[in-house]
Amino acid sequence: MKDKLLYEGKAKQVFTVKGEEKLLVLSYKNDATAFNGEKKAQFEGKGRYNNLISAKVFEYLHKNGVSSHFKRALNDTEQLVERTTIIPLEVVVRNVAAGSIVRRIGIEEKSVFNPPLVELFYKKDELGDPLINDAHALLLTDATEEDLAQIKQMALQVNDKLQSFFRDINLQLVDFKLEFGRNASGEIVLSDEVSPDTCRLWDITTGEKMDKDVFRQDLGDLVTVYDNILTRLEAL
Amino acid sequence: MKDKLLYEGKAKQVFTVKGEEKLLVLSYKNDATAFNGEKKAQFEGKGRYNNLISAKVFEYLHKNGVSSHFKRALNDTEQLVERTTIIPLEVVVRNVAAGSIVRRIGIEEKSVFNPPLVELFYKKDELGDPLINDAHALLLTDATEEDLAQIKQMALQVNDKLQSFFRDINLQLVDFKLEFGRNASGEIVLSDEVSPDTCRLWDITTGEKMDKDVFRQDLGDLVTVYDNILTRLEAL
Repeated sequence: MKDKLLYEGKAKQVFTVKGEEKLLVLSYKNDATAFNGEKKAQFEGKGRYNNLISAKVFEYLHKNGVSSHFKRALNDTEQLVERTTIIPLEVVVRNVAAGSIVRRIGIEEKSVFNPPLVELFYKKDELGDPLINDAHALLLTDATEEDLAQIKQMALQVNDKLQSFFRDINLQLVDFKLEFGRNASGEIVLSDEVSPDTCRLWDITTGEKMDKDVFRQDLGDLVTVYDNILTRLEAL
Repeated sequence: MKDKLLYEGKAKQVFTVKGEEKLLVLSYKNDATAFNGEKKAQFEGKGRYNNLISAKVFEYLHKNGVSSHFKRALNDTEQLVERTTIIPLEVVVRNVAAGSIVRRIGIEEKSVFNPPLVELFYKKDELGDPLINDAHALLLTDATEEDLAQIKQMALQVNDKLQSFFRDINLQLVDFKLEFGRNASGEIVLSDEVSPDTCRLWDITTGEKMDKDVFRQDLGDLVTVYDNILTRLEAL
């Protein structure tokens, strides 16, 4: 099915699809990176977990009215998606203070954000993906004010749906990062992946971290944790 | 006139006024600081220049319909202002790319921003005055969405007026930082100072830097430059 390698990112490869200009294949790698690529490692099986978990998330979001690029999982590590032009923004939604924001704005860890906090970062590795405001986003991307409003509204809708999705497997959705793209019809849809690589997930009972922070902070075995999440999802 | 020292900042002292609860005296110091206080020096006469230039700016803004805390210059280094509660935001307006933004978002120096770019920074020395978005500002200050809209609109109005004010003395207003406060009636007014310490000003003919960058970048004698600006203003 997959044809030419179009792009290789830190966690995924993107392939064209023979005879299907509007589709792409995402192939999830076993690489883990953190701190803008400064910390790197490989975990056997990680690509499979992210692919299968992300597929379940996108299926759930589709059922709940969120348009995304996702079509279907093709196998353990690959999924078929609609081809989109990525808007170079990392859209972060935070329900609880954790990670960079604690030091950045001097807020206590675990403070609850009500309403949830939406942040835009400019997706640009060379600059370390800096936080930006709406005016910067209008300057640096082709998004209009209406597009930004739609993107934020969709991000909050995803948050709403995913809080419930993860609550059902006893995980608290602390924060997450989304990317959006424009499909061939110009529609803005959710793109990229939604996985424990891109979400902070804390076990509701134990408070244990069940996401890439396990790798960032050397808290244990990443694959065991990701396997635990997939097992919980499959048991639903 | 001035009574008790209420607060001492990097560039000014703030005094209460005997029997006048709604007024304060700002006393401009000769200290110059840069890079969040890491670079420091004293310049004989600097306090006088900033006080007199800032007074002229506020007088001009008043005449042009911008509400500020400014009442009148009392002497060479002091001015009488309305007492306000400062909203802890540094509101930056940029007409041309210079300084931190060039590296932060990877834009070429001297790029023109059209429309002018408005940025909010959280006024908090310990955190290095981080860039924030509107959602952070709502979280970290008592400003409402309407207040933020008003603050940005006032900042753009100030920009409009000051571009013309400085053009008349052959200076290009590249960017500047404003602070806003709430007076006793709850009205949001322009506060703090507007001076070559808080503006980037380039000579229109020579392109020469005529502001605190002279100190930041060791480009020459700061006092000569500030004296030149005051002389140009007095010649109008």
